[in-house]
Parts: sequence; C-alpha cells; structure tokens
Amino acid sequence: MRILVANPNTSADMTDRLVKVGGAAASPGTELRGVTAERGVPFISSRPEALLAGAELLTMIATHEYDADAVIVAAFGDPGVTAARDLFQLPVIGMSEAAIHTACMLGDRFAIVTFSPSFQRWYEDCVSMTGLGGRSAGIYTPDVPFSSVANVQDEMSGALIDTANDAIEKTKADVIILAGAPLAGLAPKVSDRIGRPVVDPISAAVCQAEGIVRLGGRALAGPKLPPKSSIDLPATLRSAIAGE
Amino acid sequence: MRILVANPNTSADMTDRLVKVGGAAASPGTELRGVTAERGVPFISSRPEALLAGAELLTMIATHEYDADAVIVAAFGDPGVTAARDLFQLPVIGMSEAAIHTACMLGDRFAIVTFSPSFQRWYEDCVSMTGLGGRSAGIYTPDVPFSSVANVQDEMSGALIDTANDAIEKTKADVIILAGAPLAGLAPKVSDRIGRPVVDPISAAVCQAEGIVRLGGRALAGPKLPPKSSIDLPATLRSAIAGE
Amino acid sequence: MRILVANPNTSADMTDRLVKVGGAAASPGTELRGVTAERGVPFISSRPEALLAGAELLTMIATHEYDADAVIVAAFGDPGVTAARDLFQLPVIGMSEAAIHTACMLGDRFAIVTFSPSFQRWYEDCVSMTGLGGRSAGIYTPDVPFSSVANVQDEMSGALIDTANDAIEKTKADVIILAGAPLAGLAPKVSDRIGRPVVDPISAAVCQAEGIVRLGGRALAGPKLPPKSSIDLPATLRSAIAGE
Amino acid sequence: MRILVANPNTSADMTDRLVKVGGAAASPGTELRGVTAERGVPFISSRPEALLAGAELLTMIATHEYDADAVIVAAFGDPGVTAARDLFQLPVIGMSEAAIHTACMLGDRFAIVTFSPSFQRWYEDCVSMTGLGGRSAGIYTPDVPFSSVANVQDEMSGALIDTANDAIEKTKADVIILAGAPLAGLAPKVSDRIGRPVVDPISAAVCQAEGIVRLGGRALAGPKLPPKSSIDLPATLRSAIAGE
Amino acid sequence: MRILVANPNTSADMTDRLVKVGGAAASPGTELRGVTAERGVPFISSRPEALLAGAELLTMIATHEYDADAVIVAAFGDPGVTAARDLFQLPVIGMSEAAIHTACMLGDRFAIVTFSPSFQRWYEDCVSMTGLGGRSAGIYTPDVPFSSVANVQDEMSGALIDTANDAIEKTKADVIILAGAPLAGLAPKVSDRIGRPVVDPISAAVCQAEGIVRLGGRALAGPKLPPKSSIDLPATLRSAIAGE
Amino acid sequence: MRILVANPNTSADMTDRLVKVGGAAASPGTELRGVTAERGVPFISSRPEALLAGAELLTMIATHEYDADAVIVAAFGDPGVTAARDLFQLPVIGMSEAAIHTACMLGDRFAIVTFSPSFQRWYEDCVSMTGLGGRSAGIYTPDVPFSSVANVQDEMSGALIDTANDAIEKTKADVIILAGAPLAGLAPKVSDRIGRPVVDPISAAVCQAEGIVRLGGRALAGPKLPPKSSIDLPATLRSAIAGE
Repeated sequence: MRILVANPNTSADMTDRLVKVGGAAASPGTELRGVTAERGVPFISSRPEALLAGAELLTMIATHEYDADAVIVAAFGDPGVTAARDLFQLPVIGMSEAAIHTACMLGDRFAIVTFSPSFQRWYEDCVSMTGLGGRSAGIYTPDVPFSSVANVQDEMSGALIDTANDAIEKTKADVIILAGAPLAGLAPKVSDRIGRPVVDPISAAVCQAEGIVRLGGRALAGPKLPPKSSIDLPATLRSAIAGE
Repeated sequence: MRILVANPNTSADMTDRLVKVGGAAASPGTELRGVTAERGVPFISSRPEALLAGAELLTMIATHEYDADAVIVAAFGDPGVTAARDLFQLPVIGMSEAAIHTACMLGDRFAIVTFSPSFQRWYEDCVSMTGLGGRSAGIYTPDVPFSSVANVQDEMSGALIDTANDAIEKTKADVIILAGAPLAGLAPKVSDRIGRPVVDPISAAVCQAEGIVRLGGRALAGPKLPPKSSIDLPATLRSAIAGE
Repeated sequence: MRILVANPNTSADMTDRLVKVGGAAASPGTELRGVTAERGVPFISSRPEALLAGAELLTMIATHEYDADAVIVAAFGDPGVTAARDLFQLPVIGMSEAAIHTACMLGDRFAIVTFSPSFQRWYEDCVSMTGLGGRSAGIYTPDVPFSSVANVQDEMSGALIDTANDAIEKTKADVIILAGAPLAGLAPKVSDRIGRPVVDPISAAVCQAEGIVRLGGRALAGPKLPPKSSIDLPATLRSAIAGE
Repeated sequence: MRILVANPNTSADMTDRLVKVGGAAASPGTELRGVTAERGVPFISSRPEALLAGAELLTMIATHEYDADAVIVAAFGDPGVTAARDLFQLPVIGMSEAAIHTACMLGDRFAIVTFSPSFQRWYEDCVSMTGLGGRSAGIYTPDVPFSSVANVQDEMSGALIDTANDAIEKTKADVIILAGAPLAGLAPKVSDRIGRPVVDPISAAVCQAEGIVRLGGRALAGPKLPPKSSIDLPATLRSAIAGE
Repeated sequence: MRILVANPNTSADMTDRLVKVGGAAASPGTELRGVTAERGVPFISSRPEALLAGAELLTMIATHEYDADAVIVAAFGDPGVTAARDLFQLPVIGMSEAAIHTACMLGDRFAIVTFSPSFQRWYEDCVSMTGLGGRSAGIYTPDVPFSSVANVQDEMSGALIDTANDAIEKTKADVIILAGAPLAGLAPKVSDRIGRPVVDPISAAVCQAEGIVRLGGRALAGPKLPPKSSIDLPATLRSAIAGE
Repeated sequence: MRILVANPNTSADMTDRLVKVGGAAASPGTELRGVTAERGVPFISSRPEALLAGAELLTMIATHEYDADAVIVAAFGDPGVTAARDLFQLPVIGMSEAAIHTACMLGDRFAIVTFSPSFQRWYEDCVSMTGLGGRSAGIYTPDVPFSSVANVQDEMSGALIDTANDAIEKTKADVIILAGAPLAGLAPKVSDRIGRPVVDPISAAVCQAEGIVRLGGRALAGPKLPPKSSIDLPATLRSAIAGE
C-alpha cells in the first residue's frame, strides 16, 4: 500500500526524517511517500501558522491523493485533518491523534512531552480535538532553550527524559508521547530510560494508517461534499472542491 | 471608532448587507467598513471551506488593520478568529461568539436556528469553541429546501419562525439565535412572532466590538507572537507574520 | 438610555464609585442611576450574605424598574441575577457574567484576581453559573491582608499586579479580570503593568447593558411568570410577583 | 434526636403532611418538628420565589436551631441549603439532595417525576447543584393539568405512574424520584405499579438526617463564618450573622 | 434488621474491625453480620485484585443473602457493587460510595485521605464511578511508609491528620473522608484535630444501609436479570445466575 | 508475531469465528491463537457476567501469555482489560476500545449498532471507559427479537442495516461500529448498504494489536505490580500475582 506523508511545514529535511522514521515502523510492502508544503513557514509553532498550514494541506492532498491509499498529516497538532477528512475520499490520519489514540490503548492517562513551552496552548487544542482531554495528564517541556529545531532531539534528549520522568512521578501518567516532528524517532532510543511506555507519533500514525487501509481504505471515507465553485484557488484544490 | 467587517466569503452583496444591518445597531460615531474575501467560495458551508476562509481572513486583516479599531469576522462559524486574535494587535470578534455570549446574558440556554441542515455539524463545532455547549439547547433547521441564499430570509421566514417556536416548546430554550449571514437583519422583523428573545448575530457583534473598543481597544489585544519568516504568502500577511 | 446600577450591598459609597467608574465607559446619552440595598450587609463576602442580597435585589428592581432600560447587578458574584431575569420584563446583567463573557472574546482563558481569599469559593460558583468553567484559569489572591475595603485598591495595587502576573506565568491565562466591587476602576490604571489584557467588571457590565438595550432592550426580556399571591413581602415586590 | 423540618413555603398544611410522612420513615426516638415560612409564597414554583424562600429559610433556622440536632429543608429544590450550611453550626440536609444521593445508591441513573412542567428548569438547577447531572435520566411530567396542589397526588396518581413507567421505558432509568412536596408519601403507595425502585424525598431526607446525626451531628458542621454587622434583618438572623 | 458486611479481602481480622466500628454507628435493633472472602488477597491494593474481589463478592452475597436485609461491600473502592446490584434482589451499598454521598451532604467538596499512594489511581476510579468527580478535591496520602496494615491507623495517625489539614488548606475542601478499611474507626478519634468534618466510611455505609432498609429494603432492588446457565461457578452463585 | 485472542465467553464456536474474521484483517506473518473461557457463561450480557468474565480473563492470560506478543480481549465491553494491563507485561487490547479509537480516526462521532437492547447499559459503560463519550452518537438496536446468538448476524442483517441508516439520519453519526462478538465479520458484507464507514471490532482489534507490537510490543507494557500472596486462585494466576 502507499501512504502519503504530507508535511505541512516547508522543511523538506523534516519530511525526509519523518518518512525515514515512519518507514521503520511500516510493514513489508508499505511505501511511504513524503511531500512538503510549498508555502507557509518552516516550522509551525502558533495557531495562525497552523491555520495557514491546514489550508495548504488541502492543496497538497488534492495534488497527490491519486496515488495514495491513505494520508498522514505529518505535523503534531494535525492542522487541517478534519477538513481534509470531509473533503477527500480517502483516509486521513493525524500524527497527534494517532499517537493519542494509541497511547489510550497502553494505559489510562498519557502525558505529552515536547521541547518548547510555546507549543503548549496549541497542543492542548489538539488534545481537546480528540475528545480525550479527560485522559491527558498534561503537556510538559524542559525549562532549557534549544539552539536548533534540526538538532533539538540530540541536544535536549537528557532534558526530555528528565521532563518525562518528572511528569510520570508528579501525575502518575501511564504513557508518554514525545511530540513534535523534530522529535521523530527519539522514542525508541530513550524508552529504556523512561519509567513508562513511550509513543513515537509518526510511527503510531504509520501503524494506524496501515490498519485503516487493511480495514477498508477508501471504503472507510465519508460521503462526498456537494460540489462548489470557487475563486482563485490552486487548480487541484479547485477541482477537489468542484467535485471534479 | 472604525470597525472592520471582514467577510471571508467572496460575496460582496453579503458584505453590503452585513454592514447595513450591523450599522443599524451601531452607536453614533461608529463607522463600519466592509471587506470581502478575494479568494475562496461565495458562501462557506463546510469545514474545508471554513478552513480556507480562515486562512484568507488573515490576509484580509493584515491588509486592512491599519485603519480599524476592531475587526468583526463576519461569517457565522467564526473562521480564523482565534488565529487572528493571536496574530494581530487589535480586538477580533467573531459574529457567532458575539451572538452566543450575548444570548447567555439574556437567559440560561440558547437555541440556534438556521436555514440549512448542512451547517449543523459546523455550527456545533462553533458552539464548542466558545465553551458554552452546556448552555446550548441545540441547532434547528426547517425541513424545507431554499432556492437562493440571497433571498433565503424572505423565502423561509415563516418556516424559520415555526422552527424557532418548535425548538422553544421542545427544549425550553430561553433565547433564539438566528444564525447564518444570509439571515442578517431578520431577527428584529420576526421577534414578535417568536416566543422568546431573538438575537441577530451581526448586530450583536457590532455591539460587542464597540464595547471592547470603549473598554480599551488595541490595549486589550494579547502579546505579539515572535516574528517568523515564511514562503509564498501574500505580502501583507508575510509582513504580519514577520512582525514588521 | 437609563441603566439602573443596583448595588445589593448596603454601602452607598460603593454605589457611588461603581456609578462613577461605569460612567467613564458609557456612551454619550447613557445615564447610570445607582441604588443601594436598604437591608443586608455592607460588603457581601459569603454565600448566606449573597442569598440575602439576591432577595433584596428583587425588591430594589421592583421599586426602580419603571424608569430603567436595563439593570446591572453591581456586585461581583451576581447575586439574584437569574431570579431577577425570570421575574422582570427588562434586561438584567450581572457584573461578573459581563466581565467573564467579555474576557472570552479577548482570549481563550481568563484568570480572576481579587483581594481576599475568602471570596474564592463564592467566585468559583459564579464562574460555574456562566458555564464557562472550562475557560477559567482560576481565581488568585495576594497573600497579604488588607486594612479597609474602601482603600483596598490603592493599598494592594502592587500585590494585585504581582498576583496577576504570577497567574499569567503559571497558567498561561490570556486575560485578567480584576474582580470585586472595591477594585472598580483599577484595571485601566494598572493594565500597562500586567502582561495580558485586563477587564474592569463594572465597565464591562455597562458596555454589555448598553449593547443589549441597543439590540432590543425590554423586547429581549423573557416571558412573564404567572401571577402569584404572597405574604409579608415589600409592596413593590409583592406587586411584581402578583404580576400587577 | 430532634430534626427540624423547615418548610420554606407558607403552607402549614404542607408542613404537617411532610412531618407526618417523614415521621413514618423515622427511627424510634426521633422527633420531627415542623416550622412553616412566615413570609413568601404558598407554594414555590419559580426561581425568584425560591430565592426569597432561601432567604426566609435562614431566618427560620436562626430562630429554631437551638432545639434541633439537624435541619431538613423541606421543599424540593433545596432553596438556601448551601448558604444555611455555611452559616449554621448544625447539619442542614435538602430534601432533593437527600433523594438524589439515596437514589444513586439504588441504581446508576435516576429520573425525576413531578406534577407540573413549570418546575422543570428549576429542578434541573437542583440536580446540577448536586453535581450528579451525569446520572440524571431527566425530569418528566404528565401532560395533564391539575386542579389543586393540595390534592394533586390523589388526582394525578395514575398519570404519574404512567409518566414514571414511560420514563423507565424510554431512558432505562434505574430509579424514580417522585418529587415535589405535594407528592410526599405517594411513593410507597404506588411503588408496586412502577417498574423500578421509587424514592420518597422527605422520607429519604429523614433517613439521611438521622444518619448524619448518628455519625457526629453538630461535629459535622463546617467552621464558623467571621461575624458581620447587618442592617434591618430579623433579630435571630442578625444574631446568627453577627456570630452571637 | 440484619446487614451483611461482606469483606472481599481475605482478612478476617479486618472484617471483625469493620463490624465493630460499624456497629457503633448502628441503631438499636440493627445486627451486622461479617463475612470474609475465601479466595483472593489479604488486602486489595490494585485493579486486578479488585476485579478478583468483585467476582468473589458475588459468591459471598449469593451464599449469604438469604438472611440479610441489605449488604455492605466492605472495602474502599466498592469492588463488584454495581454488578451485585444488578444480580441480587436486595440493596447493596458500597463503603466508598456511602462515604462520598454522605460527604456531599456536609459540604461542597470532599477530599479523600488514605495511607498509601498506591491506592490513588484506584480510588480515583472509585470517585469517578459515583459521578461526583466534580466535587472531589483530590486524594491525599502522607509521604511516610507504614510497617503494617493492621496497625497503620495508630502508626500514622499524626501523619494522616497533617495530610488532611494540608489538603484543607490547599484545596479548600469542606469535608475529609478517611478512606481504606484499615482506617475504620479513626475518624471520630481525630476529628477534633482536623479543621473540617471527617467521615468514617464503614459508619457512613451502616447509616446508608439502615436508611435504605427503612425506605423499603428489598422493594428498592431493581428487576431480576433473565436466568442464565453457566459453567464451573460456585453452587450458590450458579443458582443466583440461573435465577433459581 | 503471535496474538492471543482471549474470548472470556465459554463458547468455543465464537472463538473460532473471531479468529477467522480477525485473521482476514491480519498481515502476513501474524498468527492468531484463540482461547476460550473455561468457566462463566456462554455469552456475556450483563454486568455480573462481565465481572466474572473479567476475572476469568486474568487466568486465561496468566496461562497463555508466555507464547503471545499481545492479547486481544475478544468480547465487546472489554471485560477485565484495564486490570489485565496492570498485571501482565504485554500489551492487552480490548475489542471495543480498538473499534472506538479506530472509529475516531474516521470521523467525528461514532454510533454503535448491536442486536439486543439488553446490552445498551453495558455498552454505555464501555464507551465511558474509553473517555470518548463526547464523541458517541449513541447505541442503537433493532426492535425485533432474534432466535439464536449463533445466527444473529444472518437473521438480522436487514434490520441492523436499517438501524444503522436510521442512526446516521437521526444523529449525523460519521461512523458505525457493528458491535458484539456474534456480529464479527458482518461489517464488510454490509458496508455498501450503510451510508457511512462501518467498523468491524475484531478486525480493528487485530490491526491495533499488530500496530502496538510493531511499535514496541512488550516494551510498551507498564511497570510490574508489587508481588502479592493470595488464597485459592488458579495456579497460573497465583503465580502472576506473586510476580513469579
């Protein structure tokens, strides 16, 4: 099967990393194809940026859906995921919802650990969107700054482990989610130093997307929206909205 | 004071109507200025369309904020309102949140009456976004189809009155919100045939925006986001995101 | 328009201050008229006192409603507001609900800052009454005692600013409400030393009351209760309950 | 032990009935003493009336608490119960909270059946006040009018049984509460014609009050409020508020 | 009346203590009969153990229900209580639900104080089961270890008093529940050193069971389940499930 | 990988069917091994039966965990799943939680359709246990009786399709879950006659279990409970509880 890994950030390096890490969790025969946003910001970290990224995601899927069995929205926070699900006739899975639903089958409550306090509010919105706020033990970040998004998982791994263990101690969280695309692939490297199971979101998303494809794939998409005319949208998106 | 009425639909006729109806509720000395989306769909009726409209709204505000004291997002459903509030240094008020908060000072529970069942899910999201789901008595629509968005409030007024009165009877709702930009201005015309107070959203939004300007205006905007580089965004929005 | 500022405390000085501060936020042509409770306690600070004040409020409105377009219940905690709304045929707006609904159009979450920990439980009830508990970031008070309710806003302004900034730091609250009638008018004086927008409740209530009068005024009151006989109530209240 | 049955309605006949029905559930050695409100309305049926009744209740308890081990607030809706609990140094139990908490030890969800649709909103508030809204299956009333509060339980018993059985069928409620002082004593008479356990509120309140007295009585009252001066309150209430 | 005190732990000493402490709260004429689990663990402290205890409880009630008017599930956490209520034709009251419902008639919010942090999660489940999570101020334990379950209430009484007072100070809890069968009988001994009312769960359960028997007893049990065949269950339980 | 399909009902035929249907959704290389409860009831349909089944499940896993990478609790309602997760050092996935979490990645709200109204309450508990009650559109059953659990999916397929389509029409549910082990395998056969995506619980559970094994398997189990002595438990369960 073919899964589109749609990164709504403009960083192609990040897309490559997500495809590589996600690929390690994939079954034989699953092909991941990465695409990167052509407009927007290099790394989404606020709600206005997420809104723009969500809109761009629709164009990305419109352009590439023809050769995919499912789409992963490859940014924590899942920008555009519900809108995409309404518009396209194929499964669309968010990286953060995949991590959260998976975590909920590993224990009662999950804590999210990420690398910058500026994501807190946005990630809270994202937990609320799943309806699983009652099972969240909170969102935790180290108090230390980082020098580069590209290297943050190496640079901060010690601080992230401490933050995770502190959150477990303080909240009795059963599961840790290491969140944010720049932390992709960190979970398996550090899980033996964290006192509870650790979930890697892109890997969880790959497993969830594969499962949904095996359960029915495009047959599990909702009904089509009525066709609509539009003004000045990219051609592929215009077609999708026109129901062409 | 000057209030920007930003209509994220592409219908200039709708903008004119909203400015006219809203103006009737304004105080002397308040000037409403309407702007209409340059890209998107004529009338938003789904989540993908609302997502695109929210993104377009950011460009609209970026372009026009310099001569406004506050912005009204002039589409029920408030696309982009929280993102705009985070990005811009002036008050941004959604037409639906204004209607809902106003309704909550008129009675315990409000029911929303609109003209098409296809808005139901989207309006539910919008109620949830305010946190006032516990005070909602539901969203109700007539069972009859309509021929034109432009004339729907004349065409359906009888059916909308019946729907409102049925909702009051069934749910003991204390207040009715007549929702959807095409119904702007209908509330005062029909309120004496509906058994509970009726709120007109654009009028409520004008009153809320005026009040917030009198309470402090731009001083009531939150702190600035850190500046960010971006790719291929409209110039005014690029500047806003760059903190220029 | 004429707005009745009904202070259910027995302190006429407090009434005068509320009318003065609220008047500064009013539009030209709005007249605020203050009335003070004739029985009860000088400054409500517990639930039994609030209950008595709520009952007294009904008599106050019954006596003065004839020459008002709307009533503001001028005590944080809004004693009697829902009961008054059911009984009288004019809009009744609580000072705390006005502040809370206004705050919710300025940001996602509000924190309430007040001057005595003894109000905490009572203010929590008041937040719950609005249904907006999910958007509250909590109620905070300085740890220091105060010498006089009359001077508390001067005496404690530094401590209140620190408490507000600590609450913002700790809870990421987006908006601060400076609550309690004795703090009326403090918000604009200290807002430049607090890192987020600050709402003054009596000013918010005046703006909400004006808006509701412009949206329809008495036409926005709910239906009449059936008339009822009563024993030994003040004459004006007896008449109101008798539907006279 | 002595339990004060404080009826905040002005109907002495109702007080007598409540004392008689409640007495049948009491243990040997328990003495119930009824007192009736001296001001207010004969039968509370709205929120303004409940507010006045709650204020009157404080005076009633202030006058009679000296010779009671506990107080029952003998009106469904429990007007004034939390305020009274804060003010007085003895247990205060509401008739409706007693019924609801008892029902929750008999099954998962309870439905309330009463005789007039005009109580619905008020009873909903009362369920919310207990925090047990999640276990409520709703409030149900027959569609038929009644001629007299005094005889309503005889007049409507058939309709109430049908309403209860319909509610059970429709909602899978596990327990029925027959609510409203005028229905006191009906539960045991009709329980064999209702498909689920039926709770009589005044009887439940007597059992809860007795239990709380046996568990500690006045030692289970909360701490005293600080003393307060007041203006123009009844002498016994003035003393209670003054902490005399 | 006869009340079965069914201890689903295998410690007969604990059963004796619960019967003795509970007996002190009982009315004259009430006989408590203790039974102890024949399989399981000496002292339940995890969810798997509680699950086994709940299953064993069904056998215990099946064996002894013939000579009881009501059953108390005598382990904090109420293992098996809802299942038992569905299966048997007599009232079944859990020790923790009885404590929680009683506490809710003494104040707005209760805090639970117990002796081991390992119970925290399990007690949270137990609070959730009552639906009263919104009135819980949390679960608190001393930081010190204990040497023996049998003596824990003597050994830790000072630490438990401090923990209770700290919880009151920090959370403004109105009522304290001293939870866990090994603390049975501690509440009355220490209540004068704790700043808020203190509830003893087994005593609360005895009062609730007595009250429910007086309100109707077996007539308050729900309807019978349809009879069912089963494999390899204890004879009395097999009969109960077979509806014999 | 090897996945244990633990059926806590005593019907070996049901186990065979679940293994067969689940196997069709499995990846190459995944082996499903079915085990059937040795004590309990043929088909769980009430809470007491589910409690006994949960206890039996612990013994089943204790006996068979040595040659499994993960366990599926193969009864809708997930009896014993959280207790098993606490006790054993391997992933334990419930059939209903798997279906519910999967459904939540296909649409906003799911409706559960099953074949007997007697499961309603029990399934509601099961939805609550996931924390996703806010995304449930309810539980629906045909009004017609069935003659045999073994054939119910053939016998009732038309009625189940109608019930699903009615629920979609009425509640705007986005996804349907066909629940109850006897309906295993029905979803793919009828999905083209149901207007929204349809989830088959055992297939969803197999996909979730496979995903979790690929994400880490036993490394994703929580920490061990402290060892405990016990009385009269089956040998393998005794060992598991003793931490042997």
